[in-house]
Amino acid sequence: MPNNHKPLNGIKVIDLTTALSGPFCTMFFGDYGAEVIKIETPDGEQCRTWGPIDEKTGESGFFANYNRNKKGVTLNLKTEKGLNMLYELVKDADFLCENFKGGVTQKLKVDYETIQKINPRIIYVSGSGFGQTSPIGHRPCYDIVAQSMGGMVNLTGFKETDPVKVGPSVADHVSGIYQFVGAMVALYEREKTGVGQMVDVSMVDTIFSLLENAIPHYVMHGVVPERNGNVDPSICPFDIYPCRDGFVALGVGNDRLWEKFCKLIGHTELLEDPRYKTNDLRCKNYIPDLQDLIRGWVRQYTKKELEAMMDEVAIPCGPVLNMKEAIEHPHIKAREMLVHTPMPHPLLGDMPVQGVVAKLSKTPGGVYTPAPTLGQHNREVFGLTPEQETALRAEGVI
Amino acid sequence: MPNNHKPLNGIKVIDLTTALSGPFCTMFFGDYGAEVIKIETPDGEQCRTWGPIDEKTGESGFFANYNRNKKGVTLNLKTEKGLNMLYELVKDADFLCENFKGGVTQKLKVDYETIQKINPRIIYVSGSGFGQTSPIGHRPCYDIVAQSMGGMVNLTGFKETDPVKVGPSVADHVSGIYQFVGAMVALYEREKTGVGQMVDVSMVDTIFSLLENAIPHYVMHGVVPERNGNVDPSICPFDIYPCRDGFVALGVGNDRLWEKFCKLIGHTELLEDPRYKTNDLRCKNYIPDLQDLIRGWVRQYTKKELEAMMDEVAIPCGPVLNMKEAIEHPHIKAREMLVHTPMPHPLLGDMPVQGVVAKLSKTPGGVYTPAPTLGQHNREVFGLTPEQETALRAEGVI
Repeated sequence: MPNNHKPLNGIKVIDLTTALSGPFCTMFFGDYGAEVIKIETPDGEQCRTWGPIDEKTGESGFFANYNRNKKGVTLNLKTEKGLNMLYELVKDADFLCENFKGGVTQKLKVDYETIQKINPRIIYVSGSGFGQTSPIGHRPCYDIVAQSMGGMVNLTGFKETDPVKVGPSVADHVSGIYQFVGAMVALYEREKTGVGQMVDVSMVDTIFSLLENAIPHYVMHGVVPERNGNVDPSICPFDIYPCRDGFVALGVGNDRLWEKFCKLIGHTELLEDPRYKTNDLRCKNYIPDLQDLIRGWVRQYTKKELEAMMDEVAIPCGPVLNMKEAIEHPHIKAREMLVHTPMPHPLLGDMPVQGVVAKLSKTPGGVYTPAPTLGQHNREVFGLTPEQETALRAEGVI
Repeated sequence: MPNNHKPLNGIKVIDLTTALSGPFCTMFFGDYGAEVIKIETPDGEQCRTWGPIDEKTGESGFFANYNRNKKGVTLNLKTEKGLNMLYELVKDADFLCENFKGGVTQKLKVDYETIQKINPRIIYVSGSGFGQTSPIGHRPCYDIVAQSMGGMVNLTGFKETDPVKVGPSVADHVSGIYQFVGAMVALYEREKTGVGQMVDVSMVDTIFSLLENAIPHYVMHGVVPERNGNVDPSICPFDIYPCRDGFVALGVGNDRLWEKFCKLIGHTELLEDPRYKTNDLRCKNYIPDLQDLIRGWVRQYTKKELEAMMDEVAIPCGPVLNMKEAIEHPHIKAREMLVHTPMPHPLLGDMPVQGVVAKLSKTPGGVYTPAPTLGQHNREVFGLTPEQETALRAEGVI
């Protein structure tokens, strides 16, 4: 795909983000072709030390996954020279992205008020735990805190056990996607009016927005929904079952599928059982007998066998895939959800990273360059000679 | 906010989506000011029957939450007249959004090939379980199937119990956000080139993109990560603890906070304990003694008490809020994450719905109108007299 076909070609992003939610946002900018200049402190941003770490080189795979397609520079914003070098970059930038804790941008003099005086057209994208207008905006926030306060932990897990957080950092990730949403809406607005603005996304708000019918259940009827494990409240049988080599989700969505399912498992007598005549009755009478019976049947087979059997009769089925199985699944392969960069990473070599989710037919986005090593693009971005670079580094500016 | 300040003002969206992932995408269009024309079959889309249901009127709160800011019309696309009425709407539309199962748009003659012949500038946004290029694209997919196959279920839950799905439908929701991401990138591209295209998002890909360091752990070292409950693998103490009225997440992120924490809980002897001298040692020796000790202390207090105590000493803390507690929390209130529509819903009356996550300082987006009743905007959108409307309804076209 020629360079000028990338949809965000010509867009310049100053990226002050660290760790996860902000870098996930700026990853989208890079994937769609913007120039993303990732600015790190001279000792590197925090997640350069996060595992998995390559033993030979000390490079972080975590960092590599999220920072492909970005240029890497270093700046000490606490020095006057460093701050002025940032201001210089800001002058013709389209975006500045940051995900500091509330109050930090003011201390560093990189807050929106300051930045928009230098460049009124800039779109300033801010991601944080609680956002810019929260009474608790001063607090530190981790993913687990946002998942808990936003209401998701309370709705996840089995009734019989403690509630459980979502394994992967869903608050960080989805907050990063929302940051990019706000950025793109603001960019379209700027195309029309020439005016920049600030985008403000909170991780707690992000989680709250994903709670589905929990919100109307409470608003309309005062019902406070609680966690319900893997059993679907309104379709039955619909559950996750242990099988020979793991677990599998099965959803028998209607009476026609119920008939097929009973034949498949060799229990046509269930079709005549008054406890299971309708979906409503099956929901009411699922536990323990019907659940136990299906568990007994599923346990005989492997994930692959079950997936193939269910595909045959068009019953929705999802084997619970682990990382290896997911990566090796024909679906993930066909969708190019794990991709090689065209050139190897300078230290990690060939390091596949996750692919692009929102696929555009004509300007698809992609992975063009590996993540930068620390300060790799200092000379290019700041226009420095090797001597100037050495001098600035010695001064502690870059 | 005057009408012309909505960032997507002037954008017209033809919305064929149903249930959750597609309607969540078109909700963003409406929130930022686009004209969204939601097209339902004459008997209403499936989730008009999904709970919570208002007993008096039979209206669905689920539907109301996701379909605010949209116009509602009915069309039977299986009639020639109905299909032609759709094609008429398509002529000057900017977007067509759909989330049918693979293959259905071709059968209905509303696939991208057909639609772009009528309007080459249109951006066609497609959300589905597996996307347009998957070898298993013909299969039905529910949220739980995507969560399972995408790799998230395997990473969620306690080691000692079965894996568990994320309570709310995270695959549906986040896939909807990605659909909007693709739509906005394609819109910006069209501003430059005048060319429309197709956006293709899969729910399984969506989940795969949120797995975080599971991907590089497997890619770099062949490690297949497994679920780990609520205990953070690299920071300690960092866990979710039972308290007097529920659960609370606490994260003691460094040695300085560890000292504060030990003083707060009245166990300064822990500071001298060789098992807990460093974060690494605490991680290794957390279970069972340190976990039990903290559990015993936390259990004495309520969520509110713990939140206040931790705020005082700046230790990250997230009470596990249920729906009522989240809605009543000062943060959610200040962020306007539950908002009233300016005019009441025609049948449900004053029905608060979820607010806007990505907040833009100058063109913030918002909730302007309640969800439509079935066919509410038929006359307005199709330009029908009352007599024509009655006739088309009798014919089974609308």
